[in-house]
Amino acid sequence: MVYRLTISYRGTEYAGWQRQPNALSVQEVVERALGVQLGSTVAIVGAGRTDAGVHARGQVAHFELDRRVESSELIHGVNRHLPDDVRILDAGPAAAGFHARKSALHKEYNYRLSRAPVLSPLDSWFTVRVEPELDLEAVRRATGQLVGRHDFTAFALAGGAHRQPVRTVLVAEWQANGPELRLRIVGDGFLRGMVRSIAGTLIEVGRGKMQVESIARLLEGRPRSEAGPTAPAHGLTLERVDYG
Amino acid sequence: MVYRLTISYRGTEYAGWQRQPNALSVQEVVERALGVQLGSTVAIVGAGRTDAGVHARGQVAHFELDRRVESSELIHGVNRHLPDDVRILDAGPAAAGFHARKSALHKEYNYRLSRAPVLSPLDSWFTVRVEPELDLEAVRRATGQLVGRHDFTAFALAGGAHRQPVRTVLVAEWQANGPELRLRIVGDGFLRGMVRSIAGTLIEVGRGKMQVESIARLLEGRPRSEAGPTAPAHGLTLERVDYG
Repeated sequence: MVYRLTISYRGTEYAGWQRQPNALSVQEVVERALGVQLGSTVAIVGAGRTDAGVHARGQVAHFELDRRVESSELIHGVNRHLPDDVRILDAGPAAAGFHARKSALHKEYNYRLSRAPVLSPLDSWFTVRVEPELDLEAVRRATGQLVGRHDFTAFALAGGAHRQPVRTVLVAEWQANGPELRLRIVGDGFLRGMVRSIAGTLIEVGRGKMQVESIARLLEGRPRSEAGPTAPAHGLTLERVDYG
Repeated sequence: MVYRLTISYRGTEYAGWQRQPNALSVQEVVERALGVQLGSTVAIVGAGRTDAGVHARGQVAHFELDRRVESSELIHGVNRHLPDDVRILDAGPAAAGFHARKSALHKEYNYRLSRAPVLSPLDSWFTVRVEPELDLEAVRRATGQLVGRHDFTAFALAGGAHRQPVRTVLVAEWQANGPELRLRIVGDGFLRGMVRSIAGTLIEVGRGKMQVESIARLLEGRPRSEAGPTAPAHGLTLERVDYG
């Protein structure tokens, strides 16, 4: 049987989602907790490989098990074996053939900025400070150009195995609430580092260091070096994965 | 000269605002950082004595100093000597006679609940979980009774030196956002433990364990034992102090 997990974590203390040697990953702590609860070794597959320091409110993973297990055991039982910064929010059997990555239709990420002169410690784990003078109107005009089907090579971190760099962005918009700014971006798939590279580039536009129009040019498959810097990991949260 | 500070902190690691023997307080770490920056011993007075574990987005404090000091030194200079969970957000000279506690006109607190079956680690520092079945409509009707000038003895923690228990609540309202519930309460002054006792009592109303109408009776000066339990500290944040 295939089981589906919805997982939330603070990425601060982790080397990212993906299991790796010599560094603690979210995947490893979840697999370990599942193993303790179920009494057998379990390998999970996540919807997206969030980088070191990136948070998730609704990461999704699946695993196979040759017996029935109750949702409450997968949620409350496994949570007892997890550290405070990782929680199973929901769990249950999935349709046959369900695959957390391959079955995903859309993912939604948020990137949080604050124009406050000093960041409150209530926000600083999840928010990146920018200049109060940031030109939000220019940032919004640049952001609008991202929507649609484009070649996102300019926004892909080197080192990612990018099968193909053409992706569709369905929603890209900024919500402003006092000094807080939040980029909400929904797409059918994201290249490695793509949201952080987009955020970093849009910040450069807001600073007047890049032109609003430069985004359209970058989306013609320009190299990474022509886009702005990669914004810090801790501003980014994987909010949701949609399976239709 | 009198200087005014706006301070934000995560209360998690502190025994509250107020300096005390054998336990670390926010007041102590701010006084220590000011002392290092200014090269002299400084005593600060806060607007309100938040309890252990309670957070602040906009605590206000004042101190006296016999020389001029720039706002930027008080903000950025002092922040360099503070731990990550305490920050000076704003600072500057205040009018002669300004007193952080005595000059305060209103304070605003928020108390955060979540009806999510499992709390996300992105929320769990600042949010208290309640049953998804909580009757928000009943909670809201009960909350409306708090507004006005009343005797809040029933909501005061024993041990507070309550000069007089009659206080005016100007605003008391719940904002709902998906599973998240936030009590916003503004008043001319709060007794020790008052917001947490109110939150704990309103939760009992939402569970059907207390009647909506019982709030009005409690506000006639009934003893603490007749109200509900004190809700956990980590759901509470001192948002703002107004001086008109």
